[in-house]
Amino acid sequence: MKWCRIQLDQGPAYGVVEGDQIAILSAAPFERHERTGERCPLAKARFLPPVIPLNFYAAGLNYRAHIAWANQHHGMTLKPPQQADIGYRSANALVGSGADIVIPKDSTGPVEFEGELVAVVGEKAKHLPEREALGCIAGYTLGNDLSERAFQRSDRTLWRAKNTDTFKPMGPVVVAGIDPMAQKIGVRINGRMVSEYETKNMIFSLAHYIARMTRYVTLYPGDVLWMGCDGPTLPALEHGDLVEVVNDAIGVLTNRVVRES
Amino acid sequence: MKWCRIQLDQGPAYGVVEGDQIAILSAAPFERHERTGERCPLAKARFLPPVIPLNFYAAGLNYRAHIAWANQHHGMTLKPPQQADIGYRSANALVGSGADIVIPKDSTGPVEFEGELVAVVGEKAKHLPEREALGCIAGYTLGNDLSERAFQRSDRTLWRAKNTDTFKPMGPVVVAGIDPMAQKIGVRINGRMVSEYETKNMIFSLAHYIARMTRYVTLYPGDVLWMGCDGPTLPALEHGDLVEVVNDAIGVLTNRVVRES
Repeated sequence: MKWCRIQLDQGPAYGVVEGDQIAILSAAPFERHERTGERCPLAKARFLPPVIPLNFYAAGLNYRAHIAWANQHHGMTLKPPQQADIGYRSANALVGSGADIVIPKDSTGPVEFEGELVAVVGEKAKHLPEREALGCIAGYTLGNDLSERAFQRSDRTLWRAKNTDTFKPMGPVVVAGIDPMAQKIGVRINGRMVSEYETKNMIFSLAHYIARMTRYVTLYPGDVLWMGCDGPTLPALEHGDLVEVVNDAIGVLTNRVVRES
Repeated sequence: MKWCRIQLDQGPAYGVVEGDQIAILSAAPFERHERTGERCPLAKARFLPPVIPLNFYAAGLNYRAHIAWANQHHGMTLKPPQQADIGYRSANALVGSGADIVIPKDSTGPVEFEGELVAVVGEKAKHLPEREALGCIAGYTLGNDLSERAFQRSDRTLWRAKNTDTFKPMGPVVVAGIDPMAQKIGVRINGRMVSEYETKNMIFSLAHYIARMTRYVTLYPGDVLWMGCDGPTLPALEHGDLVEVVNDAIGVLTNRVVRES
């Protein structure tokens, strides 16, 4: 099953992708819902973030090659995490596939992509053992965890570096039934592949994260877990660039970069 | 105007406090709403967090005496922030006044209170100048930013220290029309006042935070800004303690502490 959230003239709506059509639903697929009978051609869909999460989790550092690269290229002194401690992003920054990424006027950059696998929670969950942990996940989508490295260095928190409006593209669709630990994630800039990695290299698996997290926090339907990225995150994004996060099962999350005028 | 969100038999509802009664509304006071005609005695109200925020902001360090105290008592090396960088908490941890605070089984503590003034956003806002910044605020409530100091030391993020389920009591009501920079905030444990401070001592004012934040992020109705606390945050909370955050205009946010069994 493949589903999305799109902008209709009357407002946002969830829908199920069927061939080249989207069948509109009365609510999210993980809630009580029915088909409204309305359809929208997939080619004309204006994608929104597939969910607006109550809790927006991000693993941050979860791949060794990315940590090594960040230390080398950004003079950081990051160490591989010793335990699965989850971080946070904020929903204001979410946009869907097709929306512009807007770099603030006073950004000195670089602004870098981080293409990530995103797990979407479908059921309320607490105290899940690791072997059952993936049962609460409704499906998977893609995220671009954009990062402004000058803000990241200067600020006490990641608020501007990671959560500036439009800095969290997510989508285009959510796909159920794929193995989160066996995905290839790529990033293209202007059609050229600039990063490719495999999710099997996560330091802590998604199931491990969920099991550990739900000892302390309740997961809610619509919550998202962004699982981090591997490898380099350059070249930096410039005004006019088209940046795409790609995965065979989920598709292409595509966004144009513009500088605030 | 004083309003709240309470649990009715048929589900959560917003209401306006009028004397010893709550007049139920069809939606939040900052949205299009009407009175349903239903009423609930204030004395019988089961308070919920007054809002469930899309974005949950927290100033963290925003008072000098608290920073000095934390350095002295917790061996920290915190410095007063040079600029108003906002941090985050997560909505899973919210509970209303009257709910239990549950300390996880494996907490070695101490678990400490932090009584805070909370601003509730009522209007979508971007690029607000400082002199107009408070215009987007619907009103003010109280928050207890509970902190488990052992988790705070051991973890790479604040997820367990600050965002364990039930660690963010908020309420009991939202009050419009008070001056956020002229409030006295107190904390009582088992009826004894253990902390008192004045919000005029904030390092960065609420208006300054909002002006700076909205250069980069859009504020949405229901978003909350927790403004930090001043002074000491001890004695540590123990099983059975009643902890209360108090303010003359807003009232008393009251929660019982229990240890997970």
